[in-house]
Amino acid sequence: MREVRPEPLTAEAFAAFGEVIEARGQPLAINYGLTERFNDLAGIDCAAGGGRAIVSLFRGIPLDPLVLKIFERHPLGSQAFMPLGDAPYLVAVAPVGDLVPAAVRVFRAGPRQGVNYRRGVWHHYLLSLSAEAEFLVIDRDGPGDNCDEVELAEPDQVRVVL
Amino acid sequence: MREVRPEPLTAEAFAAFGEVIEARGQPLAINYGLTERFNDLAGIDCAAGGGRAIVSLFRGIPLDPLVLKIFERHPLGSQAFMPLGDAPYLVAVAPVGDLVPAAVRVFRAGPRQGVNYRRGVWHHYLLSLSAEAEFLVIDRDGPGDNCDEVELAEPDQVRVVL
Repeated sequence: MREVRPEPLTAEAFAAFGEVIEARGQPLAINYGLTERFNDLAGIDCAAGGGRAIVSLFRGIPLDPLVLKIFERHPLGSQAFMPLGDAPYLVAVAPVGDLVPAAVRVFRAGPRQGVNYRRGVWHHYLLSLSAEAEFLVIDRDGPGDNCDEVELAEPDQVRVVL
Repeated sequence: MREVRPEPLTAEAFAAFGEVIEARGQPLAINYGLTERFNDLAGIDCAAGGGRAIVSLFRGIPLDPLVLKIFERHPLGSQAFMPLGDAPYLVAVAPVGDLVPAAVRVFRAGPRQGVNYRRGVWHHYLLSLSAEAEFLVIDRDGPGDNCDEVELAEPDQVRVVL
């Protein structure tokens, strides 16, 4: 079993997997100057095969022990997660294509950082680090099988060291 | 000028204007029992006229004095707001069709309550009640003019009494 310490989540480090949803760059001033708009932060891609983007809320409790065994991907759509509070969470991903366990990367999200997994990107399911964590999720609903799941063999599993 | 005290935001009271995005009803148990999913809470309607749904972050400061003078509507798409913290905010709306100032209603959102304005619903722009309020917003980007704005005459304006 491999041990991994999470990396900080940055837009650059995450670019191969999708977008980091965060207040970055120069906002637009709207609403007569009372609001800053950080515009168009995630590539929502849910229309394939007659699908549509839906909005849901997720409430997650921690994985214990923190060993990553199962990865999934959504071949028909993107999936975005935005935390609704300051509770920390982890993001574990691997590139599009055949799942390569050695290529798994683990990121620790900072406050007010969401992620959008690009279509087909392997990822672990929600890795809350807090019992009260809530997330807004934008993903695809529609016809077809939109979830592939792989269970890693024991030597390929990843123990996350916080 | 009319004075209005905000009503509590409930799905029933808001139904004519759109959806309240909140953890309500029976969730689905997913991710091997570690996650509750409150599924499909808002009607995202952004595809008209070649549009697409985009995700943005808004940061708003309070309107002061709290007098509602300007209402807007998006004839081509829905617009959803989800608060990212526990900062309170107000929602002011009026029904689809010609704007009837006497029909304006003002709601006070509770913790972890978002809203999705249905296409064409009149609403005031973001009414943060806190200087640090941040929101995830899902609305339409695309061709065409997607914002009508009306300024109310002084007698039709609404002073919100908290």
